[in-house]
Amino acid sequence: MVKTVTEIARLLHGQVVGDGATQVSGVSGIVEAKPGEITFLAAPRYRRFLKSTAASAVIVPRDTEFPQKTLIRVAHPRLAFAKVMRLFYPLHPEVPEGIHPSAVIGQKVHMGRGVSIGACTYIQERVTIGDNAIIFPGVIIGRKSQIGSGSIIYANVTIREDTIIGKNVIVHSGTVIGSDGFGYAKEGHRHLKIPQKGIVIIEDDVEIGANVTIDRGTLGATRIGRGTKIDNLVQIAHNVVIGPHSLLMAQVGISGSTEIGSGVILTGQVGVVGHIKIGDESVVGAQSGVSKSVPPRSVLFGYPARPIQKTKRIEACLSRLPDLFKRVSVLEKGLNLLKRKWNDRSSKDH
Amino acid sequence: MVKTVTEIARLLHGQVVGDGATQVSGVSGIVEAKPGEITFLAAPRYRRFLKSTAASAVIVPRDTEFPQKTLIRVAHPRLAFAKVMRLFYPLHPEVPEGIHPSAVIGQKVHMGRGVSIGACTYIQERVTIGDNAIIFPGVIIGRKSQIGSGSIIYANVTIREDTIIGKNVIVHSGTVIGSDGFGYAKEGHRHLKIPQKGIVIIEDDVEIGANVTIDRGTLGATRIGRGTKIDNLVQIAHNVVIGPHSLLMAQVGISGSTEIGSGVILTGQVGVVGHIKIGDESVVGAQSGVSKSVPPRSVLFGYPARPIQKTKRIEACLSRLPDLFKRVSVLEKGLNLLKRKWNDRSSKDH
Amino acid sequence: MVKTVTEIARLLHGQVVGDGATQVSGVSGIVEAKPGEITFLAAPRYRRFLKSTAASAVIVPRDTEFPQKTLIRVAHPRLAFAKVMRLFYPLHPEVPEGIHPSAVIGQKVHMGRGVSIGACTYIQERVTIGDNAIIFPGVIIGRKSQIGSGSIIYANVTIREDTIIGKNVIVHSGTVIGSDGFGYAKEGHRHLKIPQKGIVIIEDDVEIGANVTIDRGTLGATRIGRGTKIDNLVQIAHNVVIGPHSLLMAQVGISGSTEIGSGVILTGQVGVVGHIKIGDESVVGAQSGVSKSVPPRSVLFGYPARPIQKTKRIEACLSRLPDLFKRVSVLEKGLNLLKRKWNDRSSKDH
Repeated sequence: MVKTVTEIARLLHGQVVGDGATQVSGVSGIVEAKPGEITFLAAPRYRRFLKSTAASAVIVPRDTEFPQKTLIRVAHPRLAFAKVMRLFYPLHPEVPEGIHPSAVIGQKVHMGRGVSIGACTYIQERVTIGDNAIIFPGVIIGRKSQIGSGSIIYANVTIREDTIIGKNVIVHSGTVIGSDGFGYAKEGHRHLKIPQKGIVIIEDDVEIGANVTIDRGTLGATRIGRGTKIDNLVQIAHNVVIGPHSLLMAQVGISGSTEIGSGVILTGQVGVVGHIKIGDESVVGAQSGVSKSVPPRSVLFGYPARPIQKTKRIEACLSRLPDLFKRVSVLEKGLNLLKRKWNDRSSKDH
Repeated sequence: MVKTVTEIARLLHGQVVGDGATQVSGVSGIVEAKPGEITFLAAPRYRRFLKSTAASAVIVPRDTEFPQKTLIRVAHPRLAFAKVMRLFYPLHPEVPEGIHPSAVIGQKVHMGRGVSIGACTYIQERVTIGDNAIIFPGVIIGRKSQIGSGSIIYANVTIREDTIIGKNVIVHSGTVIGSDGFGYAKEGHRHLKIPQKGIVIIEDDVEIGANVTIDRGTLGATRIGRGTKIDNLVQIAHNVVIGPHSLLMAQVGISGSTEIGSGVILTGQVGVVGHIKIGDESVVGAQSGVSKSVPPRSVLFGYPARPIQKTKRIEACLSRLPDLFKRVSVLEKGLNLLKRKWNDRSSKDH
Repeated sequence: MVKTVTEIARLLHGQVVGDGATQVSGVSGIVEAKPGEITFLAAPRYRRFLKSTAASAVIVPRDTEFPQKTLIRVAHPRLAFAKVMRLFYPLHPEVPEGIHPSAVIGQKVHMGRGVSIGACTYIQERVTIGDNAIIFPGVIIGRKSQIGSGSIIYANVTIREDTIIGKNVIVHSGTVIGSDGFGYAKEGHRHLKIPQKGIVIIEDDVEIGANVTIDRGTLGATRIGRGTKIDNLVQIAHNVVIGPHSLLMAQVGISGSTEIGSGVILTGQVGVVGHIKIGDESVVGAQSGVSKSVPPRSVLFGYPARPIQKTKRIEACLSRLPDLFKRVSVLEKGLNLLKRKWNDRSSKDH
């Protein structure tokens, strides 16, 4: 596909500075870009590459001046980058329409129009697959599960029975949805397994990374809210409920029955205990351990997680802690000396 | 299935308060329950739902009074819940008996009676599968491995060669058992791979979550003791030995050759270094890092892990640490002032 | 295979003490070894087993004396152990040459000589597979990917399109290479997906554990350097670049666009934020959180990661922190008492 800079600027609600007739046929990083490609200024510190880049045009923040290059000035460069990427590139690799002959399809499966089912994939009985859904090779979908229209299930994903997946959901390879929750009751020394009869509901527009695990509810549902994005190797326990438009970064773990609000950001390797609630639009820093419910718009960091300003104050103190021990020793000596002098004087006075 | 409250109470060794003839056909949460279902009081704070629940009967702790409802009073409500769930629901989804035609079965495989082998599953040569074992679709079982009777291997699991799995073991989807340990010897700048010729032994009644990794021994065995339960995304390195009836929660990692005792609980995201021993019935709090052997019945928390009381005392101090710095500054000023006064006085005295 | 101690010693550049004609046919641990096997002294603390081991010969450090046993003295016992293991045992289980009839091979796939393709494996169109590569069952390799000669891809691995894998690479089961990076731009409340059009490059001699996730670049490549070894359940985000001969232990997570140097060691569960650089030959202790670039040969530990000596000093202080609070309280009382006495005296003096 070839687009002019003017056409791209129109899509981005941006302003062209330079030659709007310049033709662009792809997107590249500012260092790697070749003539005929458009690139973007990812951060102010890359400004020095404006001079050397071979790109034919550069997407820049509004106030950028650089007369030697054709620029598109935009209010939100990252969003503009996303849009121009979506203009030139598809969201998933090309797949053939139809059912691969090696796929195994159970009884009473209901398939919509334009569905693609890959090789060695097994769709069990009574599964429903919506229009234009793409199921890659090696996927196993358990009985009575539903995959909404336009959803993409990558290779080697496992979806257990009775799972409900909405529209335009993306699930990356190796992920397991609907596995049994970790539920036991102690009976003497033994752990007696509690049957996990609940389900998993993944709402529309959710994206789930690779090798993620999402357990089914014990009773009721584990639910991932509309538009939420989950990175690789994340663990979602039974009966967790996550609101819409949240971000869970890699290796996060959420324990059973916890509620995560909407617009929440949990950074990499965060752990959250069970049966608590993280308020809407809260942000939790990397590797933090959250053990108590927090109100909306909390900004937490640390192990244990505290309000970030508090953790930062403590961190600053920690660096100076060995020094504090010395200061206290000096004080103790100083005070003792003064006491001794005082006592000497007092005894002399009498 | 329909049971009367009296029948259920007998199974639970519980006491009926109300109408023992009430009929029950399922279990549900206290909020979601419908007439004809039994529910339970999961925690005292849910007591307020006793009034509003539509359930026909409620399992409650022994001292609970609530005349408007049919109750079953029990000593251990969670255990009673597990038992009533097992009464009404199976431990795994229904599967057809027999070998799916798309499964690939190697030479000299020995299958017991009543085995189920799913689609696109590959059982390599000389594997032994016990009576009534269920192997879901997409599973790969390596040469000479043994699966005990009654065991359930969910979809897309990989079991490498020579693995020994006991009876009534459950392995959830995406899990890898018997992968090579992370063993190298340094040779100049290079890391020379050490062949991993050991095996993995999973004893009876173990349950292993989704996307877990259990490496084979370098020499000898990695061993998971009878009745131990492992949650999702856990890493068990080569030659780790875990005793019976332990619980390893999600995302725990155990390094090579470490021994975990019996009845140990490792909470989510705990890390344990290699070549140490965690004593029986120890409990380690979430995200803790254990770097030294600990005796039986240790209760640890923190990074690094310390006895929990010690960590809690330190945590309490940390919150007050910025304040301590101020107190020390005040002390320094106070002492200096007093010293100066003393010196002034002393010089005046002479 | 049977070898004499003298033959083995020659391979190890070691010195025989005792009967060099002793025949050895396998390797075992010092406790488990049987006659006819060779073992090694893994650590000085196992010296006591020299007396009891049934092994026919023992590999020991240079200065070891033990006249009752046939010894091979070597400069580097672990390296010698690796070499003797490689002498007696293969690096991977035996596989049949050729393409299993249940495998699905796409159009224009190019296969080298001696390739093995397992059951239910799907090689998509235009993939290139080098000589003697082994692809186990249940593997999915996406369009146009390249697998170098001698590489081993274990069961149930997923390799997405356009991935480049070098020679003699080993990828363990359940691993996903080339999944989409976690890239979105915010548009109001929504997260707009950025197409991930980059690739993954795995250089020669890399080994990747089980259930690892390596995301493709957004633009450009995610790259794992020659000879680097990655343990199980590690997360490598988009556009991460790892130098040669580094070690990433289990459950490590590296965020987007970060650069890890050569010869770096990241211990278990370490997290590294995005867009930073870890200098060559740095070592980061278990569970540490690295949030800033560090120069070569840094040795870091802690959350947040600091130079290890600094963290250790702080840790030592933390154990004594409750005591420090008491000492400061004692000081405050002491100083107040002295002030009061001073004031009493001063007022008396006047």
